[in-house]
Amino acid sequence: MPEPIVLKFGGSSVADAQKIKHVAKRVIEFKKRKFNPVVVVSAPGGTTDELIKEAHAISKRPHKRELDMLLSTGEQKTIALLSLALWDMGHKVISFTGHQIGIITDENFTSARIKSIDRKKLKNYLRQNYIIVVAGFQGKTPAGEITTLGRGGSDLTAIALAATLNTECKIFTDVRGVFTANPKIYKNAKKIDIMSFDELLEMASLGASVMQARAVELARNQGVKFEVASTFSREKGTIVCEEGKLLEKLVVRGVTEDCDQVKVSVIGVPDRPGIAAEIFEAIAKKDISVDMIIQSAAKPPNAVNDISFTVKKKDIEDVKQILKKIVKKLKAKEFSIKENVAKVSIVGSGMKTHSGVASRMFRALAKSKINIEMISTSEIKISCVIDEKDVKKAVKAIAKEFKL
Amino acid sequence: MPEPIVLKFGGSSVADAQKIKHVAKRVIEFKKRKFNPVVVVSAPGGTTDELIKEAHAISKRPHKRELDMLLSTGEQKTIALLSLALWDMGHKVISFTGHQIGIITDENFTSARIKSIDRKKLKNYLRQNYIIVVAGFQGKTPAGEITTLGRGGSDLTAIALAATLNTECKIFTDVRGVFTANPKIYKNAKKIDIMSFDELLEMASLGASVMQARAVELARNQGVKFEVASTFSREKGTIVCEEGKLLEKLVVRGVTEDCDQVKVSVIGVPDRPGIAAEIFEAIAKKDISVDMIIQSAAKPPNAVNDISFTVKKKDIEDVKQILKKIVKKLKAKEFSIKENVAKVSIVGSGMKTHSGVASRMFRALAKSKINIEMISTSEIKISCVIDEKDVKKAVKAIAKEFKL
Repeated sequence: MPEPIVLKFGGSSVADAQKIKHVAKRVIEFKKRKFNPVVVVSAPGGTTDELIKEAHAISKRPHKRELDMLLSTGEQKTIALLSLALWDMGHKVISFTGHQIGIITDENFTSARIKSIDRKKLKNYLRQNYIIVVAGFQGKTPAGEITTLGRGGSDLTAIALAATLNTECKIFTDVRGVFTANPKIYKNAKKIDIMSFDELLEMASLGASVMQARAVELARNQGVKFEVASTFSREKGTIVCEEGKLLEKLVVRGVTEDCDQVKVSVIGVPDRPGIAAEIFEAIAKKDISVDMIIQSAAKPPNAVNDISFTVKKKDIEDVKQILKKIVKKLKAKEFSIKENVAKVSIVGSGMKTHSGVASRMFRALAKSKINIEMISTSEIKISCVIDEKDVKKAVKAIAKEFKL
Repeated sequence: MPEPIVLKFGGSSVADAQKIKHVAKRVIEFKKRKFNPVVVVSAPGGTTDELIKEAHAISKRPHKRELDMLLSTGEQKTIALLSLALWDMGHKVISFTGHQIGIITDENFTSARIKSIDRKKLKNYLRQNYIIVVAGFQGKTPAGEITTLGRGGSDLTAIALAATLNTECKIFTDVRGVFTANPKIYKNAKKIDIMSFDELLEMASLGASVMQARAVELARNQGVKFEVASTFSREKGTIVCEEGKLLEKLVVRGVTEDCDQVKVSVIGVPDRPGIAAEIFEAIAKKDISVDMIIQSAAKPPNAVNDISFTVKKKDIEDVKQILKKIVKKLKAKEFSIKENVAKVSIVGSGMKTHSGVASRMFRALAKSKINIEMISTSEIKISCVIDEKDVKKAVKAIAKEFKL
């Protein structure tokens, strides 16, 4: 049996009839190269947003089960159209919705998690030499309810299928791969040939929007090697694999920026156990995700702390409401909000074994007269919160410093 | 448990957010009147045509399984949006696609026939007091493939659900009911209050496009009483039921016209057994449906017949190809095509017991100087093929003659 391969095409790659025919041709290229393609597609570009708009025209807080019923139609449309194109070009093909191919999820409508995939059915159709086209972004609960996997969920479907079939995956998109910096900001940014899951994971969650972070995480946990490449060129993209497979561990693989940040500070918080938990539990209850958290050490004899953290811009009104209550309850002094901030980060798996990386970053920012408001680090990442107006300058300075 | 009732809303009734909200309100009215509504909806007006266009932009002969995969998204969209509206108005509701509610069909993609419906699941949700919203026009094969039921298939879904639940059905549409004549041609046409299945069946197949003929047939066979009424008014519509329940059997219930007709004549056909079969088998093989068939008696000593029949306009090119071969093979003299013809018909279940109806119709046409080209009759119907340009005149003359 030919080797199966999972090919994923995003919404901008299937936006109209011409593009769908082009995707069909790319799939056939793999077939001719003796692969057995399993194709995962998103909804045609803009469709999901359009459907969400229609839902909101009817209900301000759309019922989640029914929202998933609505949203899942987008990908179903694409699998049908792509299969029509492949039949028309003379190839044996069969399309499956998420529920038909047995992608079983939990019952968390609008952001469900995949629990299992029906491997037998996939194998059965591959054995009969069918090209298989699967609707991304969707699944069903064990009871047969249609669920969706959240934004970017088609990436997740592709990686999960590759894991199920124990094979590789190609993520085709409208960019040529992952870049060392945002090419819109830094013209000399270079395409990365190969990088580790962890590096992309940090970059994906830091705002480099090539791929859904949950999908990268799944690829790492399941050891699914994949390539991010352009639908519209035959050029090699960026290969993402286990760190052990990298010949060269770069100290800094890339720089990313994220302007969807607001800095929140709670000032004069009494220093006693459980205070931080109380603040962040209240925020988590509202489903708001907090990014960086920094607490200044309490200075005797007053024993009060300042706690700062960042949240996404959309959550700021909710956060204000929560903090008004919390500040009173905890007898903190006050809270402050700074809206025009951004986060710049450097990522690289070689960072763990190299010292002085952080100081080079801070020095580069200082030379450009950029003030750092918050710092946070992980094993392979350093992030700084800075003024939003300095973002472009910061990315350029860092890219030059580390020759990205 | 409150009485279940099946409510069906067509594409023009759910064409946008405002109309969907209006439909939700109508459904709630039934809920408040202590009914347990099972709602069947079509795709938003124009959607199915749009999807077919998209399919044809990709493949001139779309693969039927994949076409059904595509088309079924239209109704899925409507069930989700209507359910969002009903939740938003504070009602417990659940939507089901055809496959989810267990509408099992044969494997005849694009015009499948319903074999069974999962009554238990329906009853289960009705018992829990849910409003149930079902996608019309679709089902699944026993193997789980998505099928569609052909044009107007949502009517079929509604009647089948009413039969399964042993209850009545309301077909809401953009007209106020069934009329004695086409109101666009005959201004004084009246809405029919009550009529029999057979009468509507004749009228539906004769071109009065209020309802799918297959659905009326199913209603007759299953004894499902239904009402055709307007989505946008509270006025009573037309009730359709068993003939035995009609208080008054009108001789002529209505007049219909059908301009999608072409008259075909095969001239000088040798008079020997099996000739007619040979002609119509060749036509049936191409899936062309033939309407009226008339054969003139053979006149000795030549013993040749003329055979005339009508087909739909779209089929005329195929028919020409077939007849070219057949005429040669059968040693017939020639064939002729007349394109600008139309059929006017009168329908009424009282016709069987009244003589002289046909002659009154012919006399009315004659008085208006309209020439009759072909005549065909059934127990409750008389049809005449006439020149297309005379249609309006004919409908008016007949409507006046029978006081419709």
